[in-house]
Parts: sequence; structure tokens; C-alpha cells
Amino acid sequence: MNADAAIPLPKNPKVIVIGGGFAGLNCAKSLKKKPVQVQIFDKTNYHLFQPLLYQVASAALSPADIARPIRQVFRDTPNIDVLMAEITSIDVENKRVFYDGGSSEYDYLVVAAGAVYSYFGHDNWEKHAPGLKTLDDALEIRRRVLLAFEEAEQEEDPEARERQLTFVIVGGGPTGVEMAGAIKEIAVNSIPSDFRRIDTKHARVILIEAADCLLPPMPEKLRNQAKKDLEKIGVEVHLGEMVSDIDAEGVTLKSGKRILARNVVWAAGVKGVPLAESLGRELARGGRVEVESDLTLPGHPEVFIVGDLALAKDAKTGKVIPGLAPAAIQMGKYVADVIEKEAKAGQISERKGFHYVDRGAMATIGRHRAVADVKGWEVTGYLAWWMWGVIHIFFLIGFRNKLFVVMSWLWSNLLFAKGARLITGFPRIEVKKRIGKPKEETTPTEEPASEKVSSGANQ
Amino acid sequence: MNADAAIPLPKNPKVIVIGGGFAGLNCAKSLKKKPVQVQIFDKTNYHLFQPLLYQVASAALSPADIARPIRQVFRDTPNIDVLMAEITSIDVENKRVFYDGGSSEYDYLVVAAGAVYSYFGHDNWEKHAPGLKTLDDALEIRRRVLLAFEEAEQEEDPEARERQLTFVIVGGGPTGVEMAGAIKEIAVNSIPSDFRRIDTKHARVILIEAADCLLPPMPEKLRNQAKKDLEKIGVEVHLGEMVSDIDAEGVTLKSGKRILARNVVWAAGVKGVPLAESLGRELARGGRVEVESDLTLPGHPEVFIVGDLALAKDAKTGKVIPGLAPAAIQMGKYVADVIEKEAKAGQISERKGFHYVDRGAMATIGRHRAVADVKGWEVTGYLAWWMWGVIHIFFLIGFRNKLFVVMSWLWSNLLFAKGARLITGFPRIEVKKRIGKPKEETTPTEEPASEKVSSGANQ
Repeated sequence: MNADAAIPLPKNPKVIVIGGGFAGLNCAKSLKKKPVQVQIFDKTNYHLFQPLLYQVASAALSPADIARPIRQVFRDTPNIDVLMAEITSIDVENKRVFYDGGSSEYDYLVVAAGAVYSYFGHDNWEKHAPGLKTLDDALEIRRRVLLAFEEAEQEEDPEARERQLTFVIVGGGPTGVEMAGAIKEIAVNSIPSDFRRIDTKHARVILIEAADCLLPPMPEKLRNQAKKDLEKIGVEVHLGEMVSDIDAEGVTLKSGKRILARNVVWAAGVKGVPLAESLGRELARGGRVEVESDLTLPGHPEVFIVGDLALAKDAKTGKVIPGLAPAAIQMGKYVADVIEKEAKAGQISERKGFHYVDRGAMATIGRHRAVADVKGWEVTGYLAWWMWGVIHIFFLIGFRNKLFVVMSWLWSNLLFAKGARLITGFPRIEVKKRIGKPKEETTPTEEPASEKVSSGANQ
Repeated sequence: MNADAAIPLPKNPKVIVIGGGFAGLNCAKSLKKKPVQVQIFDKTNYHLFQPLLYQVASAALSPADIARPIRQVFRDTPNIDVLMAEITSIDVENKRVFYDGGSSEYDYLVVAAGAVYSYFGHDNWEKHAPGLKTLDDALEIRRRVLLAFEEAEQEEDPEARERQLTFVIVGGGPTGVEMAGAIKEIAVNSIPSDFRRIDTKHARVILIEAADCLLPPMPEKLRNQAKKDLEKIGVEVHLGEMVSDIDAEGVTLKSGKRILARNVVWAAGVKGVPLAESLGRELARGGRVEVESDLTLPGHPEVFIVGDLALAKDAKTGKVIPGLAPAAIQMGKYVADVIEKEAKAGQISERKGFHYVDRGAMATIGRHRAVADVKGWEVTGYLAWWMWGVIHIFFLIGFRNKLFVVMSWLWSNLLFAKGARLITGFPRIEVKKRIGKPKEETTPTEEPASEKVSSGANQ
């Protein structure tokens, strides 16, 4: 659209793709064996299937189940070159990207660098309330959640114990809803008989959302059902509440309410990656880049912005395209089609704008429920949960991943057996706060243990 | 043996087990539903199947495949209480153990706290040459090994690239032999077509052993076969060589030889955990605790030392019991039997000494070979590798672990497909050393990429 005059291209134009998420990976995959040279950069070595990331955080799945090395995806594709490096800046005038240790020129640039969590200017909240974007994030949240139960088991002080067994999730989008449900299900169904002193069923899971509903883009019926289902399994849902502070002890709400909690998970706002600043444009709300209807940077028909970083409007409907995995996939494929066509023609020319085919959205709620909006067909409960499972397996990349996720789900859902809730990483366990009781005078865990133990031995 | 007079015991005596490894876990398992109260302490929350740990380091398996939460093992066992805490000292006179935040009394103590890697007084080597003891160790070694290939792919300087593609393993015991074979197989078989600029087949894997043979406790035929098999797959084996220094650039040998290597893995000496010092005894070589023939601390018939921490002699043969998993398992069960018998009798009395039933030892070499000594029957090659696999599956704890390891092995060995070689943790990638070439003037990875890419596109 923004290329009124045709611009000539070299033979085998060089395409640089920044980011191996849904948009970048699908763009590069669609350029396999096409007359272009592709270089794909990512700061990690894997493509991550983000919709299942919360299951790594809740220890239902292993990292290897939902991620695949980008190199492996392109192993038999000589025209695609994978580099594990973080692009630090982009020079659109000289058509060059820079990374630690080097730089690289392009004929086409596809910026699919995604989004990071935004703490609305309170970056100090991050260490108390990690977000869920990468495998490392998921393992960190898993470590914190599982440690909370271990620490509560050893805690003498009832108030401190209650704080350890309180989990706050900030943000009522799909990640927040799924994470809240998963933690509550662990506490209620998976681990009660693992512990001797605490009743994990009483762990509080509190979901805080600033809007007056959960899952805002979904139809009203599903939004209400999601809230009802979460409350049915015991999650406390607070709508219309905003967070005003987060510290090591808990969360303060705008309403003045204070919630003491050992664990806070951030699933609220996201913003475009800082790399976008080097494009030299004023960024839109949320650090995103406003693009033309062909997803290009205004004035630069050779620079595409796709995925969560793009603020794009549908060429047909004029509606803003949502930051969802299916939209990112479609954007990536659309750009690959444009590039392939032009590479074959030898020139950049007039383009048809991008149209997003909305096939719906879904979210799980706890173990056996979900809400799904499939092309306007609204499904809830067990059926929606099955649909969710089948669709996610279908979209998982790699047959190995599909196989192992199905196996893990069968194992834990049908056989009602338990996943491996391993704690890795450091620190391992925090010093307990034994308020008012000096260490030397007490034998903290002994009495309650003896009681339980002897009653058990007599059974 | 050291309890000449019978010592009375309380009803339901309290047994504290320190460590959830092979010795501690098997001791506690054998005390399930017996007339004792058990408290088992571990600083991690999982039991680890250490013989397969090298496969986590080589990304063939996931942590969840070879580990299981200790709590889960004892979930239906009310007389066993699990605490995730590191015991920091033992007071044998007052029969009490101390940990961060508390202490606990015992009637019996089973110290199964294991061993840590010993750098022979050179603790500064550790950061350059991590050992392989915990899941965190394995993930760290995996990260370093996989990053070496990623960095080499981006390295312009041939010398630096060679250094990045050189892996040194120090120590020719089972861990060293298996790790060396696994890294070489990755380089030769798994990843060559993943990379565009480097030929990973030329990666050097160097195994250094101070003794004049590999796998010292094995029969000579197997020791020689192990060396031959390793050399056949391309590992360089240096026997009778000792390390005199390890730094960020590589390894210096006593012979004066210098090997430049980005990655060094330490699989040499081990020593008993520092906790042993709080027993107030002079420790034997390697920081181990010399015990009576009933595995007790001399003068303390209520304190057992089992597993790698014990320097024990076989009650029948007088031979020192080796630091192997089967020995640890047998020790743990022996102690549980003693305790059960005495708890029922209500007193500590005369004991039969511990006898180790040696069923042999085995080690894999690369993908499809192993050496196995099974009750004197010496097996090598493919058959030994199958035996190794079947036996290790059999001893893995938990049906889920067995199932998922079998699946992973079938996937990678029979279907010749690839595991997920994910890099997690930080730092992600090191700044490349671009000797003599300032960043601004070069486009480092571009030319070689273009060559490869265009030839590929024309195929």
C-alpha cells in the first residue's frame, strides 16, 4: 500500500527475522526453500509454545514438552540461518541490525520481537511479582510456588503461615485466569496428602483484575462463566480493583486494602520490547509500533512489524488486531507470502492489506473446565476443556512435543496421578521467621510431627 | 557389634534420616508403616536417580524424568515426615540435629548426606569446571555445552572457535566416561545439520584420568574395551595425566601440556559433605566417616552413617564398600532392618554386621555401547547397552519416571529423532572475542551465510 512506485530487489533478497516466537517462526517457516536468504535471530535458542507456559509454571509439564530449538526446526533448510543473539538496535536508514558482537544487512526486515511485561512504571514490583513470558520465568514461578508450601510446612507462626499460603495473581486475562486455576487445583487436589502439618486445601488464591470482568475480549456469557467456574474451585476473584503497590510482604490495592502474600504473579499489562525505540518513531500506547495495513513501518515498505509488537488494524474491518497467538501466526505467514511474491517478481510493489481471520479464543479454568469461543459458538465446562486440549496439541510444534504433552496429560488427568513437582534453582528455602521464639529454645517441628506420626503408626 | 549391653528404647522411637539419596530414601521406605516415627530431611525436594543425571546434562532427558519429590514417595505414609531443610550440624551427645530455623531430637540418626565434588584444595577451579551432582549442576553443564556450539557458530576467530569446540572431562570413572561419550555423540550425530558455519563433528572431547586406566574398579577387559570404544567414537583419552590448573581459558596438565577449552567438566574426586565435621571425629581420607561393621559411629550405636559418606568395610570380606548406588541402597535397607527389629524388641542390642552383595557395575559409552560386569559375567557393546537400559529403568523410582524415560529413549534411539536441547538459565550468550576487528567495520556473519544460503536456494 505504501509502495506506490515499484522498488527493485536483488536476486535472492536477504530477509532478517527478529524473534522466534509465533510470528517470526511462522514467517521463516513459510520462507523455507523460497528464493530468499533468511537469517532468524532470537536471544534464546528455542521457540516456545506460550499458551502452555502456565503448565510449566504449575509443574504439570516440563520445559522440553512445550519448546523446541529453533535450529532444529530449520535443520534441513539451507536457505535459513539461525543465530542465537539479541538484536540491540536497528538502523532502518542503512538497512542494518546490530547485535552483541556484530551486525547484519537486510533487504527485508521482519521485526517479531514481541512484548515484555509492563509494571506501569513500577519496575521495582518485578522482583516481587514475576511475569510469565519465558521458560526461565515459568521455572522461577514454579520454584516460588512450591517453596511456599515447603516453608509453610515448617512455619510455626500462624500469620506467617497464612501469608505463605496466599497467592495473588494480578491480571484477569487468559494467563491470569489459567495460572490462578492451576495453583488452586494443585493446592486442593494434587498435594494435600503430601503434607503433615498444613492443610493445603486452605491455601488462598486471589485474582485481581482492574476491569469489571475477566477475559475482556470474550463474549459476556463466557466472561461470567469463567468467574463462576473459578469461584467454584475456590479462587477469590476481585474485579474493578487496581494494585497500588507490591512489596516483599504482599499487595496493596487502590481501595486501600492490603493482602499479605508470599507469592504474587504478574499477568497484567504488556508492552512492546525496548528494541522498538531504535526504530526512531513515536511509539503507540503500550510501546507498540503503529503499522500500515500491510504491516510495514510507514515510509519503509521493506520493514515489517508483526506479532505483539505491532499495533495493526485489520485491512477489511478496521478493528485493532488482538495480541493473540493465532493473529501472530497469520501475520507471519502473510508477510512471508508478500516477500515470496515480490522476491519472485524482483521488486517491491503494491500490496493487499492484512486481514485477520478470527477463529475465536479459549482459556482453561482449573483441571477440567474451560471457556471457548469458536467462531461465535460459545462452549463451557468439560467439553470446552477437551476442545482446548485437542486444539493446543494440534498447534504444538513438533511431533515429539505433541506426543509427550498428550502422555503427560493422560497420566495426570485420566490416571489421576501426579506430575513431578521439582524445585530447581536458588535460593532453595528461605529462613523461617520464627517470631518471638529464639532458635535455641525450641524444637519447632517436633511436637506436631510426633502427634501425627504416632497416630499413624497405630493405624 | 558395638552395643555390648542392651540399651532400652522408647515406644515408637524417633528416627531422623539426613538425605533423600539412594541410602536415605531406601532406609525410610523400608521403615514405612513400621513402629517408628521417621523424619527425613533433604535440602532439595526431590530424590534424584543419579546414574542418569548425565543424560539431563546432555539434554537427552528432562529433570522430571529422573527425579521425584520425596514428599510424593511418602504421601500415603503417615509415620514418615518429610522436611525440606539442610541439616547444618549434629549434636551426637544430646541426640539432636540443627537446621536453619530449628532443631529436632532423635532416638536413631541415619546420616545419608552423601558426597560433594572435591577439587583437591583448588576450590577456585569449580567455577570453570562444574561437577555433576544435582539437577542444577546438570542444567548448568547443559547450558554451557550447548552455548559453546552457539558461540562457535558466531565466532570469526579460528583459534577462539577451536577453543569453544573443545570439551575437557576430568576423571575417568563412570560419570566421566558417560559424559565424554554423550558430548561426542551430540557433536557427531545429533547436531551437525543444525549449524551452517561450523562442522560440529570436529568438536574435540578430551577425557583426562590420573590413573593408568578408565573405570578403575572394573575388570581389566572392560576397562580396555571402554577406552577402545570411546576412541572409536572419537573421544581423546589421556591416561596417567593429572590436572595442575584450570582457568577460564582451559586446562594445564602436570606434564606441562596446555589444553585450551571453553568447557571443562569435573568428574574426578569426591569427598564427604562438610556436615560430617560436626560429628567431632577425625575424618578418613576423602572426608568420609569410618564406621563399625554395623555402619555406626564408634561409641554411638544409635548413629548410622550410610552411602557415600561412610567408609565401611564389609563384615564378611573385610573389603572397603564402593561408593556405588547399589551399595547405598543395600546400606539403607540394612539399617532399616536393624532399626525395625530393635524398635519391636524395645532395645538396642547385638547386631550382625553389614555385608555388601556385589552384583556388578556398568557404564554406557556413547549412544549404543556399554561395558557391564554382571556377577563376573563381562559384557560389552550393543548387548551391554541394552542390559544397561533395562536395569536402569527397573531401578528408576516411580512408574511415571520409568514410562517417560522409556518413551524418550525409544524416541531418540529407535526413531533416530532428536531430543529438545533447550538452553535455560543465565547468562545466555557470551560476548564474542572478535580479535583485531572493531565492531563498526565488520558484518561478521554475513558473508559465510550468504554463500551457504544462495547455494541452498538454487538446489
